[in-house]
Amino acid sequence: MTATNRQLLLHARPKGLLAPGDLQLAETPVPELKDGQALAKVKYLSVDPTMRVWMAGDSYLPAVAIGEVMRAGGLAEIIESKHAQFKKGDKIVGLTGLQEYVLIEAQPKFPFQKLPSIPFVSDTLFLGALGMTGITAYFGMTEIGKPQKGETLVVSAAAGATGSVAGQIGKIHGCRVVGIAGTDEKCKWLLDELGFDAAINYKHPDWKEQLAAATPKGVDIDYENVGGEIMDAVLNRMNLHGRVVVCGFISGYTKEVPEQISLGLMIVKRLKVEGFLVLDYASRFTEAATQLGKWKMMGKLKDRQTVVEGLEKAPDAINMLFTGGNIGKLIVKV
Amino acid sequence: MTATNRQLLLHARPKGLLAPGDLQLAETPVPELKDGQALAKVKYLSVDPTMRVWMAGDSYLPAVAIGEVMRAGGLAEIIESKHAQFKKGDKIVGLTGLQEYVLIEAQPKFPFQKLPSIPFVSDTLFLGALGMTGITAYFGMTEIGKPQKGETLVVSAAAGATGSVAGQIGKIHGCRVVGIAGTDEKCKWLLDELGFDAAINYKHPDWKEQLAAATPKGVDIDYENVGGEIMDAVLNRMNLHGRVVVCGFISGYTKEVPEQISLGLMIVKRLKVEGFLVLDYASRFTEAATQLGKWKMMGKLKDRQTVVEGLEKAPDAINMLFTGGNIGKLIVKV
Repeated sequence: MTATNRQLLLHARPKGLLAPGDLQLAETPVPELKDGQALAKVKYLSVDPTMRVWMAGDSYLPAVAIGEVMRAGGLAEIIESKHAQFKKGDKIVGLTGLQEYVLIEAQPKFPFQKLPSIPFVSDTLFLGALGMTGITAYFGMTEIGKPQKGETLVVSAAAGATGSVAGQIGKIHGCRVVGIAGTDEKCKWLLDELGFDAAINYKHPDWKEQLAAATPKGVDIDYENVGGEIMDAVLNRMNLHGRVVVCGFISGYTKEVPEQISLGLMIVKRLKVEGFLVLDYASRFTEAATQLGKWKMMGKLKDRQTVVEGLEKAPDAINMLFTGGNIGKLIVKV
Repeated sequence: MTATNRQLLLHARPKGLLAPGDLQLAETPVPELKDGQALAKVKYLSVDPTMRVWMAGDSYLPAVAIGEVMRAGGLAEIIESKHAQFKKGDKIVGLTGLQEYVLIEAQPKFPFQKLPSIPFVSDTLFLGALGMTGITAYFGMTEIGKPQKGETLVVSAAAGATGSVAGQIGKIHGCRVVGIAGTDEKCKWLLDELGFDAAINYKHPDWKEQLAAATPKGVDIDYENVGGEIMDAVLNRMNLHGRVVVCGFISGYTKEVPEQISLGLMIVKRLKVEGFLVLDYASRFTEAATQLGKWKMMGKLKDRQTVVEGLEKAPDAINMLFTGGNIGKLIVKV
């Protein structure tokens, strides 16, 4: 084959937001397939806050090495196969990396899943509400948050890919759901489209008073995506024995020293604060996707995407996550 | 009656450690008893980190008001009674306050308990290992830590009243128990007397390496009394899905801004971090004290006291908690 694979390689570990050159475009020849391998063309890339964590150093996964293709989830189509599991035309999701073509080994380090073909469901939904971000919200809510009818749930980064699903799962379970987001447009979407009971723009000067007003019975569950000052404000509204689902601390990923939160409240309010990772529930992904798919069919789970065009725009797209540029799932169309 | 009651009143909310004059000695006449009341002479006072929290502001209990007798646990003897529940000579424990005499109302806001008379058990044990600090360790370990045979438990402030009991409960349940304390003398006590498997003086420059060496299988349970840098070091040693029993953050009580901990580890390690207060288990105090008493009789629960003489020394005693001056339970002999 003579095709060229454009790839974004990690050139330097970012300080704060990604700077030009932290990811560098490289062109390599698309390799010849060996027995057992398959080649897929990447159609869409998933842009997720955790990518910034992978750039920074070892965490729950090893850091992406300098010079390596940047790790990313993606949706791809098999264009050639000597692989037992995949045939030409199959659509797959998995860790494709930020590149145009992905070589799938016979035994890949991270598995790829074939996409089911479901009428009226666009493929890219499997990167969002029916994919990792939706499945993250599913397990965070059902396994840790355990929402009960009548409870109050607050979701931070509520208009993001995970927060928007977490809030809707709260509504499905009969909670009063309050979202925190960073623009009036996002808040309007949460209220008008997703049916949140209240949505608060934390950039308004009186947002903490708004949060208090929106949570007259306090807060039973904090689905935490942000950390720092926003988490602190929510902890201050928590009821005794409240639960904090620690999904992410996006406010800290681009900072050397994360913002402070009032840890003492954990004792005063006897909070249960639990971190989790969706990877721990890998054996139950099908259960989650099936349930999320049912809710989608029933009209109980709405989604929205922000699509950025062009692989070369992926670094800007990653930064959008930290500057609040996206509504719903952020993807790059390759 | 013509007796005088010496009391320590809260005069100013401390900044950092207590300064001279934050608590001020006052003399008031011991009141005449009305029907239903009892009068008790305070023998011993319990000196606890949470007193510093009560001085700072409202928390799980309302703040001690300026001008009010400083709240404190104590052991007292009834010297006169028109109370249905108590007779002269009864020994009681409860929130006596930092004073020589305590007037017990017919319906006191916080209850007083009569001391059982148990052979070979000194009364002051009911302020420590069989009292609030021991009971705190009991519920923190059994309800939140849930120690399993073969697990590794790390206890911070391990030579303190609560930490020393928490560690021994870990040993009783078959854990490898590692204590962190601030002097070699404390560490020696933990090792030689209490049977801890390892004890680490965090003032040694290489203490983090010592902690790593002492926890070859990582840490399953962190019984956290300290917070800040010490907690951070323990979190770094935690195993996936470890439990953090948040009993206190003593490193932060005298600071305007508590030290930072690496919250991101909560996600990377999927930690369950839970704050608790012994007051929530009030209905089960008898169960706890009975079990602790049995362990004491069986020689499985050892205790030690640091006794400071004189009510007027109580402010210095409170500061000792934050400068590491006490081993075991710190009490003031009135």
